[in-house]
Amino acid sequence: MLKALALSNVYRLLEPGPVVLLTTAHGGTFNVMTMSWHMMVEFEPPQVACVVSSANHSFAALRTAGECVIAIPSRALASAVVKIGNSSGRDIDKFALFGLTALPAVRVAAPLVKECFANLECKVTETSLVRKYNLFILEVLKAWIDPRQKSAKTIHHCGYGRFVVDGETIKLKSRMR
Amino acid sequence: MLKALALSNVYRLLEPGPVVLLTTAHGGTFNVMTMSWHMMVEFEPPQVACVVSSANHSFAALRTAGECVIAIPSRALASAVVKIGNSSGRDIDKFALFGLTALPAVRVAAPLVKECFANLECKVTETSLVRKYNLFILEVLKAWIDPRQKSAKTIHHCGYGRFVVDGETIKLKSRMR
Repeated sequence: MLKALALSNVYRLLEPGPVVLLTTAHGGTFNVMTMSWHMMVEFEPPQVACVVSSANHSFAALRTAGECVIAIPSRALASAVVKIGNSSGRDIDKFALFGLTALPAVRVAAPLVKECFANLECKVTETSLVRKYNLFILEVLKAWIDPRQKSAKTIHHCGYGRFVVDGETIKLKSRMR
Repeated sequence: MLKALALSNVYRLLEPGPVVLLTTAHGGTFNVMTMSWHMMVEFEPPQVACVVSSANHSFAALRTAGECVIAIPSRALASAVVKIGNSSGRDIDKFALFGLTALPAVRVAAPLVKECFANLECKVTETSLVRKYNLFILEVLKAWIDPRQKSAKTIHHCGYGRFVVDGETIKLKSRMR
């Protein structure tokens, strides 16, 4: 159902700055959080920096397991994305409550999110700035896209529940990768 | 002409992931580069992580001066943004060649870009991951917006000169900052 995406194309999903979900597995349970503070660090193998606050329930899981999945939701999931961001896995099972389907990943114990159009299996590769900034660096080990969600529009968070949705696409002649 | 923006609102400009320009001053000249690999790290004082490749002419200026300006262009500047990304300050004066106006900043020697709708004066605060990842952490000292460019639409880079422009804005009830 899901299709493998070449790792060299992963940056094209994250560089535009969409809101993403981050899933973890910890103590036999799955959790998922909403995240906007991420950036590419290297093209290939793709490396991604992200900030996961130590106030988040996912922090301990990420720190301990050293693995996660970055799942990219389309605009259709905006309402679920906000609910995920406004609740804690300490109290509830967010997959069950918000209608998300956990699928097994190949390289990590954290689950893929079936409803998202892209899923990136990641391992933590750098933790030296975790203590000071909650900043992790991840390497993407395996990437998946859902071929049924072609040209999905992503959402970008502008603060306080305001999101801008992808609009027009323009193509300019460029030698930039 | 430009208006000061409260530092607590800076993350609302960068969190959506727009393509930005980064200006530097070095050896009596200004330079400007195009950058998409950036993320927020802290709300206030606002801190921003970014990747500036050591292959870029701006790298030495940023490393030496420890200062820069992040300027945010609207869709109207997309063509200039690509040209800036496809050329090097080693060879040319990009401000002159691409019709950008350098304005003096208040807290740093790097210039503001008059044509951009927002300008953020920054100092480098963390360099421990520069050698390994070209990753800098900056603190925003002063922020400016151009009141004549209200609701400017930003562009987001998807690779190879393809950009998605801000579309519809949606507002969902949220306790997220």
